[in-house]
Amino acid sequence: MQTIDFKQVEIGEGFIRDLQKLNAEVSVYNVYKRFEQTGRFRAMKCIRDDAHKPHIFWDSDIAKWLESVAYILAKKEDAQLKQWADEAIEDICANQLPCGYFNSYFQVYEPENIFKKRTEHELYCAGHLIEAAVALHESGVDEKLYAAMIRYADYIYERFYVKKDAAFTTCGHPEIELALVRLYSSTADKKYLDLASFFIEERGKHNEETYAFTYPIYHQDHAPVREQTTAEGHAVRALYLYIAMADVARIKGDGQLADVCEKLFQDIVGRKMYITGGTGSSYHGETFTFPYDLPNIFAYSETCSAIALAFFCERLAKLQNKAVYHEIFERVLYNNILAGESKDGKGFFYVNPLEMHENIYDYNEGLKTKLFCPIPERVEVFDCSCCPPNLTRFIESAGGFIYGTEGDAILVNQYISSKTQIGQTKLSLSSQMPYGGTATLRVEGTALLKLRVPAWNNGVSLKINGRKVEAGVHEGYLEIGCDGEVEIALDFHIRPKFVYANENVWYDNGRKAIEYGAMVLCGESADNGKNLRAVRVRSLAGAKAKVGDFFTLEVRAERLKTSSALYSYQPPVAEPFTLKLIPYFSWANRGKGDMQLWWL
Amino acid sequence: MQTIDFKQVEIGEGFIRDLQKLNAEVSVYNVYKRFEQTGRFRAMKCIRDDAHKPHIFWDSDIAKWLESVAYILAKKEDAQLKQWADEAIEDICANQLPCGYFNSYFQVYEPENIFKKRTEHELYCAGHLIEAAVALHESGVDEKLYAAMIRYADYIYERFYVKKDAAFTTCGHPEIELALVRLYSSTADKKYLDLASFFIEERGKHNEETYAFTYPIYHQDHAPVREQTTAEGHAVRALYLYIAMADVARIKGDGQLADVCEKLFQDIVGRKMYITGGTGSSYHGETFTFPYDLPNIFAYSETCSAIALAFFCERLAKLQNKAVYHEIFERVLYNNILAGESKDGKGFFYVNPLEMHENIYDYNEGLKTKLFCPIPERVEVFDCSCCPPNLTRFIESAGGFIYGTEGDAILVNQYISSKTQIGQTKLSLSSQMPYGGTATLRVEGTALLKLRVPAWNNGVSLKINGRKVEAGVHEGYLEIGCDGEVEIALDFHIRPKFVYANENVWYDNGRKAIEYGAMVLCGESADNGKNLRAVRVRSLAGAKAKVGDFFTLEVRAERLKTSSALYSYQPPVAEPFTLKLIPYFSWANRGKGDMQLWWL
Repeated sequence: MQTIDFKQVEIGEGFIRDLQKLNAEVSVYNVYKRFEQTGRFRAMKCIRDDAHKPHIFWDSDIAKWLESVAYILAKKEDAQLKQWADEAIEDICANQLPCGYFNSYFQVYEPENIFKKRTEHELYCAGHLIEAAVALHESGVDEKLYAAMIRYADYIYERFYVKKDAAFTTCGHPEIELALVRLYSSTADKKYLDLASFFIEERGKHNEETYAFTYPIYHQDHAPVREQTTAEGHAVRALYLYIAMADVARIKGDGQLADVCEKLFQDIVGRKMYITGGTGSSYHGETFTFPYDLPNIFAYSETCSAIALAFFCERLAKLQNKAVYHEIFERVLYNNILAGESKDGKGFFYVNPLEMHENIYDYNEGLKTKLFCPIPERVEVFDCSCCPPNLTRFIESAGGFIYGTEGDAILVNQYISSKTQIGQTKLSLSSQMPYGGTATLRVEGTALLKLRVPAWNNGVSLKINGRKVEAGVHEGYLEIGCDGEVEIALDFHIRPKFVYANENVWYDNGRKAIEYGAMVLCGESADNGKNLRAVRVRSLAGAKAKVGDFFTLEVRAERLKTSSALYSYQPPVAEPFTLKLIPYFSWANRGKGDMQLWWL
Repeated sequence: MQTIDFKQVEIGEGFIRDLQKLNAEVSVYNVYKRFEQTGRFRAMKCIRDDAHKPHIFWDSDIAKWLESVAYILAKKEDAQLKQWADEAIEDICANQLPCGYFNSYFQVYEPENIFKKRTEHELYCAGHLIEAAVALHESGVDEKLYAAMIRYADYIYERFYVKKDAAFTTCGHPEIELALVRLYSSTADKKYLDLASFFIEERGKHNEETYAFTYPIYHQDHAPVREQTTAEGHAVRALYLYIAMADVARIKGDGQLADVCEKLFQDIVGRKMYITGGTGSSYHGETFTFPYDLPNIFAYSETCSAIALAFFCERLAKLQNKAVYHEIFERVLYNNILAGESKDGKGFFYVNPLEMHENIYDYNEGLKTKLFCPIPERVEVFDCSCCPPNLTRFIESAGGFIYGTEGDAILVNQYISSKTQIGQTKLSLSSQMPYGGTATLRVEGTALLKLRVPAWNNGVSLKINGRKVEAGVHEGYLEIGCDGEVEIALDFHIRPKFVYANENVWYDNGRKAIEYGAMVLCGESADNGKNLRAVRVRSLAGAKAKVGDFFTLEVRAERLKTSSALYSYQPPVAEPFTLKLIPYFSWANRGKGDMQLWWL
């Protein structure tokens, strides 16, 4: 499948347009300001300043911010963002070493250690800078960084592929691989594909440096990638690597590598993914752990790993399309990814728990030696602030995940209101999703359309030019041939549904989540009081959805009340009440409190 | 209430006698051997040996072992134990400093720091040595250690109470306080009571040394004890302190201090105690946390804190008797305390989780930096091996918790088969507990009897000399006047019951435990396969109890089976099966596996 680039797609009125407006007008500005305040932009000047020593991955923060700006400027002018981007690009280019190398930390603080410390994110930073450069180039915003990063990529090629004189073979944190594929796609220079393949294939074949607290598996180094069958180690590292593997498999037509990618995908979505699309359940190393280990209160489920899973789904779809990739994309987008950002666009979560008890958090805050505990409210910047600019770039490029082509067929994979033209065919899509279950697609031209049927559907109603049509669903898609001007009205009959976790997920046994379309819903103490774990929902009959400032769903529920005794032979009494649910992504926007997602 | 000392009580055939036999013939021997192997006994020789440097609390390990031996030798001869005890006593006395001080760590390795490091357990060790000395003296086994420890207590009195020239006022780990009360009771020398009171009253009034990772609350130093209303900090420290407070309140008739003890007890049993009687839910500092925070998988629930809670109950009963103290004693004895030891008497748990998933344990074992995780099988010795000899001394003295007197009345508080004589009245008790619900008490003499009615009863049937009698229960006790030879047959109608945790215990919402008499039952994967969290028990009707090698209860249950999908709209299907339950105290005796206590 080929995807239609977001630059060919005009997002229409609706949920995603509001999100992109907030992103371009608030989030990207705010991320800039926090990065400016914390010295990240100054660091690009490469002036030694021990009081504001840069972190080893600050370059990647700037790079992802630049990539976000590239996507915004591709669609509209913004002189302020352009100026800030130009300044950063100016600094980076001015300080690039004659050989092509750039790293604001290493060249200033540890020049003697350039390409000597595998774990310290140098090639990861380079990868993000390359991605930013390609994005700026393809958006027509800037050529300077593009030229500079081609020089940097050439230098990396020289050192790692030709001379092989760096102190390590593969970077501790994958990213360079997928960036090189992007650079290859942009330049058509095969050396970058070769280098990407090299980094992928060499992984797991050398006994290379790891952190003191980890084994090689943390860096996906436990085996050559073609022998990896289960998702292991640091979730973001793993998924960035898998993305590049899928890319290379597609470009090279490498069926074996494609099979590995499919196995890894199945392992993730079949055994290691939260209902929100979150991955990496352990804070200890931010890693995948063992099958079905999906704790809710102490979930890690990093925003970046959610974004990475979405990208992996996109790449798998491009490799060999299946509806399930878009289904998982939809799940991770409307749940874990969007939960990463606050309603006002300023705050971010790094960790995305599926349950919150503020008194666990408060107790932990009171300890001298704090234990791991997810925070109950989003903050504007982190010391390790990878997630905010990852979100801003992702949201801005959302238009690229809607349409695709496969041979003659035009695919609609996500129901995001938008317009595009593919060949001679004009498409105009209008949808209420995620809050409603209907969509209207107006088509002008001749086309074989394949419209994805969301897995959450409760029947599919189809009208073509106002007339009800029985439509067959084939491998998750409705197939419709169009000629001329056609209006296709779809109704997937959205309604709340119980979802049950696999019996092996012992955190969720005896409980169920409630989904409404693509959204997993949650309840907060702000609406429902405390002791949400004691809330039972027997039926969703009569549930009332309301789309207002927050989407809400009111359902009949009961709270299991006990006497004041700590243990009692008396069973609890069920007290009926109306449970007000909101999308999981809207949680934690009204101050600290409790949150619950799995119900009795 | 006055308790009848275990030396006046002859344990009869049954559960506790079997336990004491195992204790005296296996456990005490095995603890000796492990302590010998690990250098603990050699350490008493106070010879510097850097290769086997003693831990700061090894003295207390030896002391509790000596106390166990004192209790055994009070009841029967054992030349081997006597010889080992004599050797240890010899070493301790030979190395006691002329001033009276003894500490195998400080006097050898840090003599310059004697009484300078508050956190390093010096007075804690002294306290246990004093307890051992009193026990040996009262058992008629040894006078040498008794004399030595009186000299040590006098030295402590001199330094801490008279000269006040130690670098701290109160010990970081309470224990000396209760030991001094014991010494006072034995010697009738009021200075020891004064010193105990001093240590109790000064706590929380000074800003004294704590560990780097803790606040004063860890050592119960956050407020003067009379202002403490909630149980806080390290659970064993807290309970040892409360025991001494109850002792002092009783001896001095101090109503205010008694009220504080009652408040602390209520806070523990009403908000901070596991159904097993376990306390201290956090491994981080082994502490009480916040109300209702009782995680099952990562429970801490140290064996020592269970023993301490039992002692606290006993002391409260002596202060002002209430049936609830014996009820909690019974709960902690037949659950957390007994779970501390393996069926063969050789292995011990320090941490007592209420749920076990072996794959969490296995995963953690595979990490380079291990996280806290309870072990799935008992071991013979720990680096910090406080629990094993605490268990051996506790089990050996179990006879002391059965009978009491209150004015003219004779109380039976625990139904442990035994004989005793109180004044002119002879009592002979025969009981099936904990496996059965009946007991027979034969009385010779004139007495007003108060027989505790266990909280788990399902009706009380009473026969006096074979005739059914309606008996009134008053504040948890059956009151019966006897004259001559009387046989009282009691039936408390044991049957399995569901128990529900308070709605605020979110780990247990929607679940129930199953108790059989005083025993909380659990299920293991050895009998029931995996996925115990998915097991639902709707009714206990038809449950079958069997007393064999293990006590078992078979109940009808169902396992909630799902499809292989990670998430599904299909509710799980309930597959009926027979769930085999065993007492919680019997778990982990058949190799590593999963264990579950709270059921759907």
